[in-house]
Amino acid sequence: MENIGTMRKKGNICMKAWSDIGTLCPITRSQTLVGDRWSVVILRELLMGAHRFEEIQAQTGATPQMLTSRLKKLQTQGLVKRKAYSKRPLRYDYFLTNMGRDFLPVILALRAWGEAWCKSKREPLAMHLTHILCDGDPGFGTLCKSCGETLRYGDLKGKPSPAYAREREKRRSAFKASRL
Amino acid sequence: MENIGTMRKKGNICMKAWSDIGTLCPITRSQTLVGDRWSVVILRELLMGAHRFEEIQAQTGATPQMLTSRLKKLQTQGLVKRKAYSKRPLRYDYFLTNMGRDFLPVILALRAWGEAWCKSKREPLAMHLTHILCDGDPGFGTLCKSCGETLRYGDLKGKPSPAYAREREKRRSAFKASRL
Repeated sequence: MENIGTMRKKGNICMKAWSDIGTLCPITRSQTLVGDRWSVVILRELLMGAHRFEEIQAQTGATPQMLTSRLKKLQTQGLVKRKAYSKRPLRYDYFLTNMGRDFLPVILALRAWGEAWCKSKREPLAMHLTHILCDGDPGFGTLCKSCGETLRYGDLKGKPSPAYAREREKRRSAFKASRL
Repeated sequence: MENIGTMRKKGNICMKAWSDIGTLCPITRSQTLVGDRWSVVILRELLMGAHRFEEIQAQTGATPQMLTSRLKKLQTQGLVKRKAYSKRPLRYDYFLTNMGRDFLPVILALRAWGEAWCKSKREPLAMHLTHILCDGDPGFGTLCKSCGETLRYGDLKGKPSPAYAREREKRRSAFKASRL
């Protein structure tokens, strides 16, 4: 991220009445919006390109009620927007706003920490990322390891490792079977 | 962070039985350890250099019971260790392990996002950081904006902005007064 002067952006409730929270700490403020595991894994799915309620539900394991309430909260806070893809019945796709897309570095940092500290040596990486702009391995920081550019949403291409692809496909099938 | 080959490290329960969690996703795994706002703000305090239970309690606003249980969980998981500084009565200081210190990039990413999206233009930065190795402004990424080196725990010096320093001092005084 660049100059702090250009950094302050326009969220939703995020910009209103932040002083009520009683702290200038950006960590505490961020945690009032996304300080729970469900919000974080929902943002992961959206950053990975999921838009459908059912796909997010299948991959996060959230109940429909849980997912509805979190998506609503994320929408109210300005990280998520929805768009109707069907009018009868009324159905929505979910997308990240700029505020939600800017959460990417947090997810990348959690990915780096989780890969380093929450896996055994025998387990494969979940995702292999490619930095589209240089076609190189972006590594685990906020700048591309291969070309040095800041990693942004839309400039990363992810390929699940075979084991992680199987895991996701299994969850997808189990979810579909549970709805038959 | 560097080569993935050198990344996998030794946590506590973190290395045991991760397969039971049923996913290779490092985000989900990280969230089982630190997927709540209390753990994150406790890690923030420890990364800022707090060691005493009372100081962490004063600055996070956690109840003693809450703080005790989170510190115990973080300790069991391998992010925190404690060391007795008094034998009678038995009292402990709390420190980060390497696993806990490695959480720094997540906190820095949350800081960047929170400063960008959870503040009005009129509000000051909470902390001004200096990269000790180059004496420059490290910026908001995982590499120092001034010298390009990876930002590590111990290489950053933080100075609260006047408003944030006042806020912290006020909490410290209120906490002390509440215990008289």
